[in-house]
Order: sequence, then structure tokens, then C-alpha cells
Amino acid sequence: MRQEYYEQLDAISDDLVHLTRLVGSAMNLATQSLLDANLQLAESVIAADTEVDSVAAEVEAKCSEVIALQAPVATDLRIVVGALRISASLERMGDLAEHVAKQARMRYPHVAIPTELRATFAEMGGIAEVIVSKTGAVISTKDVALSADIAAHDEQMDRLHRELFTIVLSPSWSHGVEAAIDVTLLSRYYERFADHAVSVTRRVVNIVTGEPYVAVSLDDQQL
Amino acid sequence: MRQEYYEQLDAISDDLVHLTRLVGSAMNLATQSLLDANLQLAESVIAADTEVDSVAAEVEAKCSEVIALQAPVATDLRIVVGALRISASLERMGDLAEHVAKQARMRYPHVAIPTELRATFAEMGGIAEVIVSKTGAVISTKDVALSADIAAHDEQMDRLHRELFTIVLSPSWSHGVEAAIDVTLLSRYYERFADHAVSVTRRVVNIVTGEPYVAVSLDDQQL
Repeated sequence: MRQEYYEQLDAISDDLVHLTRLVGSAMNLATQSLLDANLQLAESVIAADTEVDSVAAEVEAKCSEVIALQAPVATDLRIVVGALRISASLERMGDLAEHVAKQARMRYPHVAIPTELRATFAEMGGIAEVIVSKTGAVISTKDVALSADIAAHDEQMDRLHRELFTIVLSPSWSHGVEAAIDVTLLSRYYERFADHAVSVTRRVVNIVTGEPYVAVSLDDQQL
Repeated sequence: MRQEYYEQLDAISDDLVHLTRLVGSAMNLATQSLLDANLQLAESVIAADTEVDSVAAEVEAKCSEVIALQAPVATDLRIVVGALRISASLERMGDLAEHVAKQARMRYPHVAIPTELRATFAEMGGIAEVIVSKTGAVISTKDVALSADIAAHDEQMDRLHRELFTIVLSPSWSHGVEAAIDVTLLSRYYERFADHAVSVTRRVVNIVTGEPYVAVSLDDQQL
């Protein structure tokens, strides 16, 4: 019975790590589809989001089962309650990757972002990949020391997000309103993606240490 | 013991209804602060969000307690797991009201939106108020028939959101890039607010009927 119990908790943790890989890959491919105006890639990201949703639903089912059958307390209870919140965040990160891909699809065959901003979006995509990969590592290893790294990556993302606002609002912006809106929304998707990663990490810290979960001051507008 | 148990479940439900009132009031005042460029009102909305966060944290604590002490199953288990998700959605709705207030504050003493869009934002604020009030009614009465109403309000909101995109992207838009971005982001906050209300309602349907929760296809870009 106890053995089975710990296997169930491990299975939940494995599913969460699996979700970080799915949404990391989704954001990575979405960025590529954006930079290359690659319609097929964008479509594949959009189609793949159902898998994220179904793994997230499975986490919820497993958590409910553990609650009903095992009556978890203390750390185990924090794991289960935390997993419910973490899977919701990861599901949302998958949605954000999907939004990037939809933006790429909407502007196809054109590239949705001006050439001079390619490097910035490539960098945001790179940070998204690193941050979600480290988030997976935090979940699997419970090494909460990594959370400082993740916060630093989130700050990098915020800085790029602010830079993009400055660029689209500068008098030298020559791409018009539509491109400015595209850039703003896309930039926001990346920034929110990183915010959710921070939120997941804080949940893991709460699970491991028992310290209260500190809500992320999500996406304070920098504009 | 049983008596106490049902009191605990009722207390969770009461907290959720209380949260709908808090975020409804927050969005209402935020809309007013936006339309009137009322700095004091905006500040009060921003300050009040900590109460939303703390009630949401209390819901989580109460749910954890019920899980640990009462080992809920079947409908009761769905209530507790659902409440964890519902409180997260309501907390996020509070954040969105706060974002609207921050946008009002940022542009103070100017009004953040052009005069000709006042009526549209007033209408969005009105829909937000109605939708969150009905969401509270669904939670307290478990009358899931209201969910059709809520879906209809969400459609109204989506329609206004699309209209605003059309307006800022039309050749006759004369307010420049910054105002276009402000309008886009603000419109998105209202649209997401309504999406979360729909998501909460679907959770209640899941709790009441036991039918699987259907994820809201959140904020598909209409642009």
C-alpha cells in the first residue's frame, strides 16, 4: 500500500516533468515558426497543445485519486495540492506557445515581426527554453537552489520585454500599428511564459520547505 | 464530525463567492478609474488586490485541511479540487482588474483611451460586472443553467474585443501606436476576465454533474 502510494506520487512528478518538456518543445518550435514564417511548424505546435491539455488532465485525475485513496498529509499533501497548481501553470504555458504559433500562422507567408527584432525574439525564445528546462529540473530533483537561476532568467525576459516596448513606441518605429501590436502581444506571451515558470518554481519551494507559497507579481506592466 | 465537515465545505464555497464579489468590485472600480482618469480610485483597486490574494490563499488552506482531515471522495472531492482551481482563476481575475487600474494610473492625468472608445470600454466593464456576478450565483446556488447566460456574455465580450482590434487597425485610426497598444492590452484584460469566468463556471458544472471539465479555449487571438 505504501509502496503503491509513493509510486503514485512519483508518477505525478514524472507527469509534471513531462509537461515541462512538452511546453518547452512547443515554445521552441513556436519561436522557430515565428522567425521563419514556417506555417507547417506553426500548425504542428497548435495541434500538439491537446497533448499538453490531456497530460494536465491526467495529473488532476491522479491527484484526485491520491487524495481519495491515500489521505495525504504534511509534505505529501503539499505535493498533491502543489501539483494541481503546477499543472495549471504548465497548461497555460502550453497555451502561450500556441498563441505564438497562431500569430506566426496569422501573418503567413509574411514574418510577423520586423527583421530588426528577430534577434530579440530569438533571445526570448532561448530564455524560454532554458527557463522551462530548469523548471523541469527543479521539479525532478527538488533542488530549490535552481530557483535563483530561474528568477535571473525571468529578469532577463522582463528586460527584453521592456526593450521591445521602448522600440515600438520610439518615433523611429516605421512598421505601423499592426506590427506594433503583434510585437507587443508576442512579447507579452514570452514574458508570461517566464512568469509561470517562476510561479511553478515557487510552488516547488513551498512543497520542499513548507514555507508559504509567495504569489508571483505576475506581468506588472512595464509600459 | 460530519456536521463540521459540511460546514468546512460551505465555508470554502462562501469564500469563493466572496472572491467573485471582490474581483467584480475591483473590475468595476478599475473601469471607472480608466474612464475618468481617477488616480485615487486606481490606487485603491491596486491596493485592494492583496485582499483577493489572501482570500485565495485561505481557500487553499481550507481545502488542504479538508483533504487532510476528512479524506473527501466523489462529489466532495470534486468540490475541493475544483475550489483550488476556481480560486486560482478568481485570483487571476483580480490581477486583471489590477492591470486595468495600473493602465489608468500610468496615463494619469490623461485618460488612457480615446474618447470615441469610452462607450465600448464602459460596455466591457458592464459585461465584466454581470458575468462575475452570475459566476458568484452559479457557485452559491449550483444552478448550472446559468452557464448558458455566462457563455453568451463571454461571446458579447469577444465581439467587442474583435471590434476594438478592427478600430485600432483601421486606416482612420489617428491616435498613434501608444494608444493602439493601450487599447489592445486593456481589451485583452477584459476578454481574459470573461474567459476565466467561463472557466470557473465549467468547473462548477463538473462539480455538480461529475461530467469532465472542458478546458476553455482561452483567448484565441481574433486579430
